[in-house]
Amino acid sequence: MSKQEAEACCSPVMREPLSAEQSAELARVFKAIGEPVRLRLLSLIASHAGGEACVCDLTGAFELSGPTISHHLKVLREAGVIEGERRGTWIYYRVRPETLRAVSSVLVPAGVEAVTA
Amino acid sequence: MSKQEAEACCSPVMREPLSAEQSAELARVFKAIGEPVRLRLLSLIASHAGGEACVCDLTGAFELSGPTISHHLKVLREAGVIEGERRGTWIYYRVRPETLRAVSSVLVPAGVEAVTA
Repeated sequence: MSKQEAEACCSPVMREPLSAEQSAELARVFKAIGEPVRLRLLSLIASHAGGEACVCDLTGAFELSGPTISHHLKVLREAGVIEGERRGTWIYYRVRPETLRAVSSVLVPAGVEAVTA
Repeated sequence: MSKQEAEACCSPVMREPLSAEQSAELARVFKAIGEPVRLRLLSLIASHAGGEACVCDLTGAFELSGPTISHHLKVLREAGVIEGERRGTWIYYRVRPETLRAVSSVLVPAGVEAVTA
């Protein structure tokens, strides 16, 4: 999702039904992270020193080829979960916290306290 | 995920990499809600009066057959996102907040404040 969408979409946090449009937008993000390799890639990037990681930092954790990892990173990027910046030979990926906040907030049902960081 | 898994799995909240096993368990939940109809069903149940809803309360929001809705509810139930209780003719579904809390907490990256309910 775009930064604007991420900031605007999700205030109801399940206190009122999501519209079909909101559901489609949010489901796209959940689908992107609803795959074990991609979710693990996301956690590796989020927890990496400096909050960013290149493919070179990530391949060691998987028995997968570089192109396969790159494909999963592309899916995460297209869903707005991460963003990449080319510096020299490598693209460095970092999490887009506004997207994670947006989808995380949707999952907090009415009357349930959010888990604090 | 089971109640035990939901309570135990997710304290690192992306401050350290998820293991392959944690990723597989959590991705299953995200995959279940990574589909627009299922995410909308979840929000309809969560926001319904009394925190529970039967298929009879849900079909009106969709141009989908009862069996199709029931299939989506089954996927949500098998992922531990909702639970159902039969009373008379109907099964009443409610959200399992421990599962939502668990997967929501994973999405809060280090240094980012959780959204409070």
